[in-house]
Amino acid sequence: MDEAFIEKLLNRDVRAVARLLRWIDDGMEDARQTLKRLYRHTGKATVIGITGNPGAGKSTLTDQLIKRFRKRGLTVAVVAIDPSSPFSGGAILGDRIRMQDHSLDDGVFIRSFATRGHLGGLTNTTTDVVHALDAAGWDIILVETVGVGQDEVEVQRLAHTTLVVMTPGMGDEIQAIKAGILEIADVFVVNKSDRDGADRTVRELEQMLDLGRGAKPTLGEILHHGGKVDLSEQAEDKRIAPDKWVPRIIKTVALRGEGMDDLEKAMDEHMEEYKKACEDSSFVEARLKQEFVEIYRRTLLNRGWSYLMSEDHIKGIIKKMKDHSSDPYTLAEQAIEALGSKG
Amino acid sequence: MDEAFIEKLLNRDVRAVARLLRWIDDGMEDARQTLKRLYRHTGKATVIGITGNPGAGKSTLTDQLIKRFRKRGLTVAVVAIDPSSPFSGGAILGDRIRMQDHSLDDGVFIRSFATRGHLGGLTNTTTDVVHALDAAGWDIILVETVGVGQDEVEVQRLAHTTLVVMTPGMGDEIQAIKAGILEIADVFVVNKSDRDGADRTVRELEQMLDLGRGAKPTLGEILHHGGKVDLSEQAEDKRIAPDKWVPRIIKTVALRGEGMDDLEKAMDEHMEEYKKACEDSSFVEARLKQEFVEIYRRTLLNRGWSYLMSEDHIKGIIKKMKDHSSDPYTLAEQAIEALGSKG
Repeated sequence: MDEAFIEKLLNRDVRAVARLLRWIDDGMEDARQTLKRLYRHTGKATVIGITGNPGAGKSTLTDQLIKRFRKRGLTVAVVAIDPSSPFSGGAILGDRIRMQDHSLDDGVFIRSFATRGHLGGLTNTTTDVVHALDAAGWDIILVETVGVGQDEVEVQRLAHTTLVVMTPGMGDEIQAIKAGILEIADVFVVNKSDRDGADRTVRELEQMLDLGRGAKPTLGEILHHGGKVDLSEQAEDKRIAPDKWVPRIIKTVALRGEGMDDLEKAMDEHMEEYKKACEDSSFVEARLKQEFVEIYRRTLLNRGWSYLMSEDHIKGIIKKMKDHSSDPYTLAEQAIEALGSKG
Repeated sequence: MDEAFIEKLLNRDVRAVARLLRWIDDGMEDARQTLKRLYRHTGKATVIGITGNPGAGKSTLTDQLIKRFRKRGLTVAVVAIDPSSPFSGGAILGDRIRMQDHSLDDGVFIRSFATRGHLGGLTNTTTDVVHALDAAGWDIILVETVGVGQDEVEVQRLAHTTLVVMTPGMGDEIQAIKAGILEIADVFVVNKSDRDGADRTVRELEQMLDLGRGAKPTLGEILHHGGKVDLSEQAEDKRIAPDKWVPRIIKTVALRGEGMDDLEKAMDEHMEEYKKACEDSSFVEARLKQEFVEIYRRTLLNRGWSYLMSEDHIKGIIKKMKDHSSDPYTLAEQAIEALGSKG
């Protein structure tokens, strides 16, 4: 890793950053080595999550937010996680269309990643992407996901503030995705609120929040979660967020910029609350723990896989299973011991 | 692990088996040690998967199949994976109701497991449960799941033959779950086929199969999947199934036993095809590889987590992240090295 490259990254050189993101996306060892060097420079950016079903107007809302942040003199990076479709090749096309408005502004960086149809696929690298953009010096990192699966919930756990974007008349869907969005939403945005049923959607959200409040775990409960927990469960642990915050519900018509003042205000208030929570060191430590566990889990699985594949270890293992001279439980333990001694 | 207990397990002692399954469900180290001893006795059972939405009639169909297998002199163990609901406590209640019919027959064993609301939660132990029942000597192991998520698809990958149970008028749902069921279904059962729309559902399935046939990967493609793969992707690898089999579509009215002869015939034919596929050693090895990778992955994550928690290693790591004296990528690598040397 040459110093000049690191230097460029830390100075928000767009081509260097784009290269690092490609390395991350491709799972290159170079990405990992670079991230080690960058880590000490992270922790400055504000990470904002935006999630919602296709058609909810996330892109329009994101564009509005970009303009507002730029007016305040803040630089903005947008990471859009697109569920990949073999038919659309959506990610790249989407980038091109969306870049047009901001293509002359070097304070804005937009990149889409395809999830490649793998559950758990991209989640893994989103932390790295956010670290890279944070170290490079973007003030605001917007992470946009389609809010459907467990996967997206995990991505949004990274964010300091998460917006869940809905549209009027989504009553049934609210019921269906209740558990997931209750956990991650700091602000509900009822977009396209000039349509019929906006007030009803607001009321339904209010009811849902009233019902859900008692069920929300406190930080204390999360920290003392304890007991028998393995890393796969850990990865699905509760989001660490300020205890006292009551999610806001904001009506917008993003296309015409309506309601954006209210939304900006709610987001600012949430960040204030978040900063207050950070005065409690156990809050900060719980976030760091979750961050570490995610990286550790991924490293374990990657190293574990590399070991299996190197020198055809897997072939020997399958042979022993086949002739019943050993069993997969013992063989797994032996492989893990060998893994460590390899370094 | 005393010999008498192993002896009991191998002789299909119901109380010993029930105890082992509790250990597995509770993640006890004793379970692991017992499974090591039992492994050489596995590989004899026929594992049949049954999946479908709630209300499709899986339980009734399972009961019919149990009766038919018993008539042929075969013993049957049923593992039902219930998505747990905090409100129902469904698993235990379900067992009691379902056991009534077979409670005097010691050739039938039925046990439900709750998934505890964790994605990826129970999948992990289903392999162990199937190994335990296989070693204990049940001829047929029926694994029943609610066919919705990635999780269930993974469980069904264990099965030699998988039935996907549907009901008439599920057209929209077919579209929605297309990808998942296309991969796992060996036989589609259109149950409650005395209802309107049964023939239409059959036609829709036929169309879907025609469309999907080209997309189905061959064993060769699976084996040479290669390239950049980590264990999290590997766990979602394609199901290893006979190449040439074209999924059958069978209409039944399980409640009245209608269509059961056709279903039994289709299942027998599929098992024939499966046995033929096993004459190819690369087929058998691909199955063993998938089995090993799943156990290895789980062992890695468990051991990894134990290490973090022992002697408060995690506290030291968080401290170093907090004061930026190291980075999570380096710390993860160090923890993995220490893990191996611990044994």
